[in-house]
Amino acid sequence: MALIVQKYGGSSLATIDKIKLVAEKIVAEKRAGNKIVVVVSAMGKTTDNLISMAMEITPSPPEKEMDILLSTGEMVSVALLCISIESCGESAEGLPGYFAGIKTDSSHTKARIQMIEPSRILKELENDNIVIIAGFQGLSPENAITTLGRGGSDLTAIAIAAAVKADRCDIYTDVDGVFTADPNIVPEAKHIPEISYDEMLEMASTGAKVMLSRAVEFAKRYNVPFSVKSTFGKGEGTMVKELSLREGADVSAVSLDEKQAKITIFRVPDRPGVSSKIFMALGKENINVDVIVQNVSKDNFADISFTVNITEVEKALKISEAIGKELGAENVLCDRDIAKISIIGLGMMNHPGVAGRMFQALAKVGTNIEMISTSEIKISCVIKRVDGQKALKAVHKEFIES
Amino acid sequence: MALIVQKYGGSSLATIDKIKLVAEKIVAEKRAGNKIVVVVSAMGKTTDNLISMAMEITPSPPEKEMDILLSTGEMVSVALLCISIESCGESAEGLPGYFAGIKTDSSHTKARIQMIEPSRILKELENDNIVIIAGFQGLSPENAITTLGRGGSDLTAIAIAAAVKADRCDIYTDVDGVFTADPNIVPEAKHIPEISYDEMLEMASTGAKVMLSRAVEFAKRYNVPFSVKSTFGKGEGTMVKELSLREGADVSAVSLDEKQAKITIFRVPDRPGVSSKIFMALGKENINVDVIVQNVSKDNFADISFTVNITEVEKALKISEAIGKELGAENVLCDRDIAKISIIGLGMMNHPGVAGRMFQALAKVGTNIEMISTSEIKISCVIKRVDGQKALKAVHKEFIES
Repeated sequence: MALIVQKYGGSSLATIDKIKLVAEKIVAEKRAGNKIVVVVSAMGKTTDNLISMAMEITPSPPEKEMDILLSTGEMVSVALLCISIESCGESAEGLPGYFAGIKTDSSHTKARIQMIEPSRILKELENDNIVIIAGFQGLSPENAITTLGRGGSDLTAIAIAAAVKADRCDIYTDVDGVFTADPNIVPEAKHIPEISYDEMLEMASTGAKVMLSRAVEFAKRYNVPFSVKSTFGKGEGTMVKELSLREGADVSAVSLDEKQAKITIFRVPDRPGVSSKIFMALGKENINVDVIVQNVSKDNFADISFTVNITEVEKALKISEAIGKELGAENVLCDRDIAKISIIGLGMMNHPGVAGRMFQALAKVGTNIEMISTSEIKISCVIKRVDGQKALKAVHKEFIES
Repeated sequence: MALIVQKYGGSSLATIDKIKLVAEKIVAEKRAGNKIVVVVSAMGKTTDNLISMAMEITPSPPEKEMDILLSTGEMVSVALLCISIESCGESAEGLPGYFAGIKTDSSHTKARIQMIEPSRILKELENDNIVIIAGFQGLSPENAITTLGRGGSDLTAIAIAAAVKADRCDIYTDVDGVFTADPNIVPEAKHIPEISYDEMLEMASTGAKVMLSRAVEFAKRYNVPFSVKSTFGKGEGTMVKELSLREGADVSAVSLDEKQAKITIFRVPDRPGVSSKIFMALGKENINVDVIVQNVSKDNFADISFTVNITEVEKALKISEAIGKELGAENVLCDRDIAKISIIGLGMMNHPGVAGRMFQALAKVGTNIEMISTSEIKISCVIKRVDGQKALKAVHKEFIES
């Protein structure tokens, strides 16, 4: 008998028929002799619909009230899934986040989990109930409902798995785990049976859409191995856990982020504090900057380039132009047509020459590299967006297929 | 400065535009120097939609889970109304039923309020917040969400008004209070400025759709005067409170219930326990029986007639036929085309002859009376449905217009 935590995302619960299928899956695991805790997201587009209702009232609705509003989406999923499970003949106990003992801080709409008090969950398991918990939500020290922000349900599942000391934590989604590249672009992409937390984190930050970094970071910190599986598929999914260096493969996966834009501030007088001024201003407006490159010329002027998500480029450009002017920069330019290609792999740490092989693969297909950024287990190159898919195939061929 | 409890029903909150209008009304009362607690229902058809989702899974969804599901409807209203109020520049605090201190028993989907612990509400009022509370819901002793069943939000408002010792309790709905008859049928119907709890209770049971008995009973028991007003109209509404006998008017209102059906069990051997057998069986199936009439013939056989709501007639007929057979009744018949006309008035108690005047008014317009039922402040006659509106006008003319 194992204690299993499962998480189902909104697309797995988008219709009543899907909810019934999920219920049958859960009941099968229960009848195989396991204790089951399930964390659910809101059905399909529910959260988007709730947000647009609030936006009809005011473009910037207060966050505390948004949390009351958004938390209802997951509660509907909890109730309908419980009803489905009970109609299969098993008993279920549905718990909103605050009854499940999920204590957060007071940062409404982006709260952080501070503690999970699992006694209620454990009591319900002891009473032989399948426990269904609303993901994405918790309770603040002021006894107000909070929500955890994007990727919050994955985080709920992993935090609960840690708190109840689960034997397994399965994150069900619409893809069968992690692949060496996006199979929609690279048909030769291979399924990855297991991957380290660090590689998974780099994948999230390089544009692979499997999971947000936040939940993976939590899993890494508390060492909660979990698997990412397809809800309605048959595959084994990908196990994410602490891994030591693997022999053989130096690169685990290749990813392409086509939603990037680049801003360059030309010829800023190179004084201490110049970059901090720019990036503090962007940070204050909550703009996530990705790759940053700075070159200093012989005459003490710097060119500073950075990339942001394409959705934030106009805001970032406006700020950069204002700061550029203030700093006496010569010019601020923006390229909206770029992409970022990355290779990720624990094995890169002790395989010198990986970077060279990547650049060569890109050169072979005529792809020019505009920026380079590296970490211990990742190399990213900013290229023209039009070259993106061709580059992805070439790099995948070089490292994975050969 | 007054402490005011307001309640807004689902039709008053059916769209974002209506929610904004309600918010403006609330803010105006606040700015007039009052402390405001607002109880809300779910928007428009939300509850019906949630029920039909659950019904898609199973025709008899478990009640505890239905409560989790249905409670989300009022929470959405709470959040959107708070957002609207805050966008008008006032601060609001939204509370689900369980945070508002509404303690109920464990009868899921039809819970009874056992106690209201108003400290959180009072604290928020002290902090100068407008307090918005989800009606229709509470918390069971087992820490599960409960709902109060039909008319639950009115009940929440009146119970909270009692608990916080409100100066006023205003139930906002889509009609401007109570009229001497349904103005859609009787254009001469007059607005009633004040009415007693008992008359209001009789009105509810005779088919006037203003409010369900349950909330009125609670108001009577704890003596919570309240008014029923139109949300978007300008009228003063109707004050419902303890009234002593009024001089003058013997009949306060006339009502017509067109949703009745009659079942008659003919020639049952008249032994003790015969009626109890029939009505216990109907009660067990949750069928509400309204008027009951029993006649015993000289040869010790009884004819038993009763009325039920038309929606329950097939179920009631089936039970009656089974019990009738068991008891040796001669025949069971059903009339699906009846209506019930009632006159209500505290003054009837010391005005003899009211019944006679009613029967005469009906006779004058050629309406045959099939059953009669009386209470201290009400006389009801069961008649053919086709005669209903004509009869209503005649009786209204006799007692109200003259």
